Amino acid sequence: MPQVSRKGNILPASAIRKLVPFADAAKARGIKIHHLNIGQPDIETPKGAIDVLRKAPMDIVAYTNSAGNLSYRKKLCEYYAKHNIHITPDEIIVTNGGSEALQFAFTICCNPGDEVLIPEPYYTNYNSFAILSDAVIKTIPSSIKSGFALPPIEEFEKALTSRTKAIMICNPNNPTGYLYTKEELKSLAEIAKKHDLFLFADEVYREFCYDGRKHFSVMELEDISQNVILLDSVSKRYSACGARVGTIISKNKDIMSAAMRMAQARLCPPYFGQIFAEAAVDTPKEYFDSVAAEYDKRRKTLVEAVNAIEGCYCPMPTGAFYTMIEMPIDDSDKFCKWLLEEFNYNGETVMLAPATGFYSDPEKGRKQARITYCLKIEDLKAAVKCLEEALKVYPGRTK
Amino acid sequence: MPQVSRKGNILPASAIRKLVPFADAAKARGIKIHHLNIGQPDIETPKGAIDVLRKAPMDIVAYTNSAGNLSYRKKLCEYYAKHNIHITPDEIIVTNGGSEALQFAFTICCNPGDEVLIPEPYYTNYNSFAILSDAVIKTIPSSIKSGFALPPIEEFEKALTSRTKAIMICNPNNPTGYLYTKEELKSLAEIAKKHDLFLFADEVYREFCYDGRKHFSVMELEDISQNVILLDSVSKRYSACGARVGTIISKNKDIMSAAMRMAQARLCPPYFGQIFAEAAVDTPKEYFDSVAAEYDKRRKTLVEAVNAIEGCYCPMPTGAFYTMIEMPIDDSDKFCKWLLEEFNYNGETVMLAPATGFYSDPEKGRKQARITYCLKIEDLKAAVKCLEEALKVYPGRTK
Repeated sequence: MPQVSRKGNILPASAIRKLVPFADAAKARGIKIHHLNIGQPDIETPKGAIDVLRKAPMDIVAYTNSAGNLSYRKKLCEYYAKHNIHITPDEIIVTNGGSEALQFAFTICCNPGDEVLIPEPYYTNYNSFAILSDAVIKTIPSSIKSGFALPPIEEFEKALTSRTKAIMICNPNNPTGYLYTKEELKSLAEIAKKHDLFLFADEVYREFCYDGRKHFSVMELEDISQNVILLDSVSKRYSACGARVGTIISKNKDIMSAAMRMAQARLCPPYFGQIFAEAAVDTPKEYFDSVAAEYDKRRKTLVEAVNAIEGCYCPMPTGAFYTMIEMPIDDSDKFCKWLLEEFNYNGETVMLAPATGFYSDPEKGRKQARITYCLKIEDLKAAVKCLEEALKVYPGRTK
Repeated sequence: MPQVSRKGNILPASAIRKLVPFADAAKARGIKIHHLNIGQPDIETPKGAIDVLRKAPMDIVAYTNSAGNLSYRKKLCEYYAKHNIHITPDEIIVTNGGSEALQFAFTICCNPGDEVLIPEPYYTNYNSFAILSDAVIKTIPSSIKSGFALPPIEEFEKALTSRTKAIMICNPNNPTGYLYTKEELKSLAEIAKKHDLFLFADEVYREFCYDGRKHFSVMELEDISQNVILLDSVSKRYSACGARVGTIISKNKDIMSAAMRMAQARLCPPYFGQIFAEAAVDTPKEYFDSVAAEYDKRRKTLVEAVNAIEGCYCPMPTGAFYTMIEMPIDDSDKFCKWLLEEFNYNGETVMLAPATGFYSDPEKGRKQARITYCLKIEDLKAAVKCLEEALKVYPGRTK
């Protein structure tokens, strides 16, 4: 029998996926699970854009331009201009979700062995895109104590080698919920410029910033346009994760030429999703305001409730809809599995994403989990109540 | 300025793409172009499935299962069973078009330097997937004289090295329109089995077989299920190229495990496209019968007309909607460009896909082009008339 390739063997299964069988078994036993593990918003997708899709011409569902429909790319320029990001349609390629944009960036920038510096904890799937492109992720630790702010820039300097090719950030950050400041971004730009590095920014949570904070994009950085690659998606913006419409954006013509040839190989991004996404650009500001207000309420509810549990700590996130929680436990993987396999509180339990998968060294995440506030307030409260009760009786409690 | 990676540099732009600026310029001069170059069907997408999509629930356009919706995979099992392909939902992963299925297969089967044997001419984009996975395509020449039938199996045997990892066919074939016979497939299976090779089959044109011929799938081969990977798509079947819904199918659990981990990295295939594709499985037989009848008429019209041109030859294709044409010309790339740049016949011209891109050695395709019969009969006739007139005056004519 022929054998799977090395990459086929080492591509990781996500930590959450490993828990799914235990969650299914719990459900089969009649346990209600509160999903604090999920990044799938429960917010409604904008109806206006959905209605446009429902009525769109579909006589022949043809290939679109490999770069995405020109009309959509023009519309995207309007969207970005409102966010002080000034680009032209040929500086955009529409992708199969933000995931494909990530894959494009890693592949067209990194030679085998090239290193990408990423603050950790970081979004697990970056590992897969690094494996697929033979790039190497090198992490710069950020700390829960500082709310996962950008690590001191000297730490990046220290990590540089002759193989360093790019710095990558997710802003606002998944899994930490940290929104990087303009000053932090400028310090990254400086080092990228000085050492001739690409600067990748995954900004899919741009719309989710709290306490009056304003998102500052890598595209707003001056004098570094040839180094910057913006990775984006409509998934979270419009609660449309299934549309599979992302973008890779750069003012570097060599990058766009390579991305276009990669885009041509897979023919085109989705027809239906692009119709929806083009219409979604006209989603009224009220939609975002009400979504942000709802998340803001949830965020405060969740964080307050978690911090009221003895021995638990989570920082107040400033963006996205995640935060990391530190708990008095021996092993996050064991605890998250135990919650599903052995625990229930009045027939309910809670599912968390063990943090081990968000660190290059799983040890660093042993006492942490990622939690999201994609649930309604009442469910969030019930979820945290389960967590509190669980920690009272968990055999692996450490203090 | 940081530099694009080696892969970013060597990914090819398609030969047709290079002609697009000349086509645009011709249109700007008021020339009407008959597109014999395009694989985009002009056939209508089944209305029934489109109507299901228009009315589907879209309150929250959420991530689907990374492997694709279970309901769709179950429905696909019904579809395949009708084609004598017996599989279970866990032997299917739904992909972003057939393109992603190809990318999965190359990546999870081939280590860098591993060789994939492919009869040539072959679909150009296989080159990009080989580059992305560091695999090496080795071609086995087929001949226009035999209608591009499978080359003698000894030619495959001769090409084997210690690095040979897979044999790949496209059946029916793009660009040749050749439908491989059961016997040809059995001979490939034998060699794959004997030498422990994967057998990849791109069967996206399954529905397009002529003269009463029946498609025989690699999945029907006996005693080789662990070697076989089927790559498929709804693009051509339902004239829905923009839906971006494909599948990778195998009974080899290691392959499906690796494909699933690759699928998880990019989260999921498109929500809208899957709803459409699931409904499309119920497209009545009459739709396919009428499409096949239409293509059959076009096929005969095109081939007869081309063969009536002095010095031209094209074999009668037995499947898909392509055929290769040999012409009395010096250089297909030059000729195709000249057709757009310098020629017109009563304000009309024709666009062909130069065959140089379909061969490992462009020299082999210098006198050939791929033509498609995705146009209506009258347009096909007008297109061939342009070609005939063009060949009378082309300065690079060779005989």
